[in-house]
Amino acid sequence: MEKQVNKTSSLLIIGNEILSGRTQDKNTQYIGEKMSDHGAPLRQVRVVPDIEDVIVATLNEMRARFDYVFTTGGIGPTHDDITAASVAKAFGVEFGRHDGAYAVLHEYYGDADFTDARASMANMPVHVDLDLIDNPVSAAPGFRIENVFVMAGVPKIMQGMLDHVLTMIEGGQPTLARTVMVESPESEIAALLAVVQDAFPHVDIGSYPQFKQNAGWGVSVVLRSVEADMLDRAQAMLVDALSQNGISLKIM
Amino acid sequence: MEKQVNKTSSLLIIGNEILSGRTQDKNTQYIGEKMSDHGAPLRQVRVVPDIEDVIVATLNEMRARFDYVFTTGGIGPTHDDITAASVAKAFGVEFGRHDGAYAVLHEYYGDADFTDARASMANMPVHVDLDLIDNPVSAAPGFRIENVFVMAGVPKIMQGMLDHVLTMIEGGQPTLARTVMVESPESEIAALLAVVQDAFPHVDIGSYPQFKQNAGWGVSVVLRSVEADMLDRAQAMLVDALSQNGISLKIM
Repeated sequence: MEKQVNKTSSLLIIGNEILSGRTQDKNTQYIGEKMSDHGAPLRQVRVVPDIEDVIVATLNEMRARFDYVFTTGGIGPTHDDITAASVAKAFGVEFGRHDGAYAVLHEYYGDADFTDARASMANMPVHVDLDLIDNPVSAAPGFRIENVFVMAGVPKIMQGMLDHVLTMIEGGQPTLARTVMVESPESEIAALLAVVQDAFPHVDIGSYPQFKQNAGWGVSVVLRSVEADMLDRAQAMLVDALSQNGISLKIM
Repeated sequence: MEKQVNKTSSLLIIGNEILSGRTQDKNTQYIGEKMSDHGAPLRQVRVVPDIEDVIVATLNEMRARFDYVFTTGGIGPTHDDITAASVAKAFGVEFGRHDGAYAVLHEYYGDADFTDARASMANMPVHVDLDLIDNPVSAAPGFRIENVFVMAGVPKIMQGMLDHVLTMIEGGQPTLARTVMVESPESEIAALLAVVQDAFPHVDIGSYPQFKQNAGWGVSVVLRSVEADMLDRAQAMLVDALSQNGISLKIM
């Protein structure tokens, strides 16, 4: 519903451990919030297994379709860390040592602890349009290649990297949000919501039922837009409509 | 790495609120674990916005590619609940009242409370190969159409529906898992892991670093396979290799 002035971003999670249910993904929510604030909102997320062909095909589809693609996972030193090599393949370029990354890793570990496994984290696609992404937690850098940003999967490290990524990409209008909590079932406010949505096509109105122990069912109505005064007016109209119908509400 | 005897499943999350970061998705982990146990593991997850064209195109791609597609979200009574109509469009069929669903809803709400908004939840694709999915929490049913299973987004309701879904689909060999915790950095075990992985191509070995307050960096090595004795042998080989190299470990 929002005007398409903002750049679009997307997230490719490389993660057998997410698909198997072993690990709860936390990166989507973090990146979703940050990009919403940065004005390049997340428009799609995909989780794929650690299989080269799948990563290559998925990445090529996503980088053609979205302004920015973030990847998380699979850039460590072990046999299952195949992201960087897969990205090289997706771009049809060689995969080899990046001198800058090698230097960063060498300095961090020192001569004695700079094993082959650690040095392997300096291997990246060989491409003229590539920058390193700083890793303030554990040194091994991520990288940007064209519009693709390759980051670690461990949330703490990814979050550190994302700070750097945000300085590298064009921002836009942040998506603003207002939440109105209603203690009625969704179906009792459905008609009112539809009227408000029709009146404000540039405000995206979402209705999210939730069940709370001791309180029963309620609904969070979330209004989102890049336009602040449109948002204020839509919220005012909604609050009026709810009040006139005797529905109790709380503005969050 | 596992033998491709099992059916494949996939998950389509219809969720502006997940993309914006407002809500933490919890359905992926739950469904991932259940399907892994059921022997039809999750092979892909996609999160898309509440936009009809996107839902239609994504669903058509996924249902052609995976044995089963689960959708979550967007089947309530409000204006932003466009999943069922989008599914009808994806299948190229009409969208109209399902008598069975209508009867379920009518009985649950009774004459007095059976509003139009509530009745709208009985609208579904009109298709000969469609079954209702029971909703033990709040009555409004989901539905199966061919290989697509349309469920609610609220975790409590989705989980109730999934119990019914599991009785409707073919299971296979559960994926079994063993976890070995190692208190060393990943790079110190990388070479050993690669050797074990090479020796057991039908065991999928994942290495997941994690940072723990007070304990520093450690690694969970997860071995997964549908073949129990292959898994036992791979684990034994790994434990031997780690022990011989003086690396302390814990079998979980």
